[in-house]
Amino acid sequence: MSQPLRIVVIIPDLAVMDDQEDHVRQQLERSRALRMGLLEAQYDVVATLPADVFLHERIAQLRPDLIIVDAESEARDALEHVVLATRDERRPIVLFTNDPDTTHVPDAVAAGVCAYIVEGLAPPRIRPILQVAMARFQHEQALRAELKDARDELKDRKTIDRAKGILMQRQALSEKQAYDRLRKLAMDKGVKMVQIAQRMIDAAELLG
Amino acid sequence: MSQPLRIVVIIPDLAVMDDQEDHVRQQLERSRALRMGLLEAQYDVVATLPADVFLHERIAQLRPDLIIVDAESEARDALEHVVLATRDERRPIVLFTNDPDTTHVPDAVAAGVCAYIVEGLAPPRIRPILQVAMARFQHEQALRAELKDARDELKDRKTIDRAKGILMQRQALSEKQAYDRLRKLAMDKGVKMVQIAQRMIDAAELLG
Repeated sequence: MSQPLRIVVIIPDLAVMDDQEDHVRQQLERSRALRMGLLEAQYDVVATLPADVFLHERIAQLRPDLIIVDAESEARDALEHVVLATRDERRPIVLFTNDPDTTHVPDAVAAGVCAYIVEGLAPPRIRPILQVAMARFQHEQALRAELKDARDELKDRKTIDRAKGILMQRQALSEKQAYDRLRKLAMDKGVKMVQIAQRMIDAAELLG
Repeated sequence: MSQPLRIVVIIPDLAVMDDQEDHVRQQLERSRALRMGLLEAQYDVVATLPADVFLHERIAQLRPDLIIVDAESEARDALEHVVLATRDERRPIVLFTNDPDTTHVPDAVAAGVCAYIVEGLAPPRIRPILQVAMARFQHEQALRAELKDARDELKDRKTIDRAKGILMQRQALSEKQAYDRLRKLAMDKGVKMVQIAQRMIDAAELLG
């Protein structure tokens, strides 16, 4: 890759935890080791953020290529925040956790989590995991784009067909004549057929 | 899960390799360890198959829930066979490899490989990896089904609209009247509207 991936690491909201506790200290150490590994692997860690209510805004500002959730055990809470924060603009999410509870795997996957690595990560494994996560994400985005295209085409077609129907009935045109009329109008005005069709439907509704 | 997952393990085609060679012996040992781990984790390993030209037929017979490709280093060749063998009926594929070459990750992912684990696998990691692979696969299958539905709807709509156009023009009906006519015909004959529409188009073509 020409540019290093810009990564945001999300850790559980430690502000609400007692850093005298063992598992909080472990989480902090683990998180430090992860960031070291990422930097050694030439990734650009643009921020480490707590999973709190400001996450949405910060991610919108930073626009990272990939989000890593590093949650020793509070995976479910942290994930919930991340999923909300990426609902409008999907991004690849990789979860590193030791949480033995995997009952929420299907939910996490449906929410866009691309890789889900239980048990700690050895540095040599980081790069292939992130590569797969990026490739999976791009593959799924392509599928979603195809789905959107198919649905848009269906919607446009319904609009154009309604306009065609109006022309056929009011002006006693054949289907082909009505279609040609719409296409010519669109070309003359330099707009899409669906826009002309929508104007015609609006006009027909006004004129009754 | 109520029923254990039925798994097929694919290994490189060892028939063409010399089992006196170190890496072939390593592959055989590795494969044995993997199957042991799967059986210990309560999975049902229904077969271990070489990646050869008979793979397609064997997978069609066995209908496994999940395919594991265990390729120490010949990942690309083995994957090619597996991708061909699952082209007609997609199945979740997990690849275990130590191959340091990850340039074909995007291709593997596009071909349906759900997880791609470089470096050997510790037995406790097997279950979460397979769970994620299954969840990812089901999620993508759902997306594909939505895409198919949208495309089918578009195709049906085009057929119904053509038939409607024929009715509107030949019998001077309004769009709604033509639609109602088609719907009534479909209900009377107990078939789908798109089938009646297709018959009408065929008839109109015959009658000119």
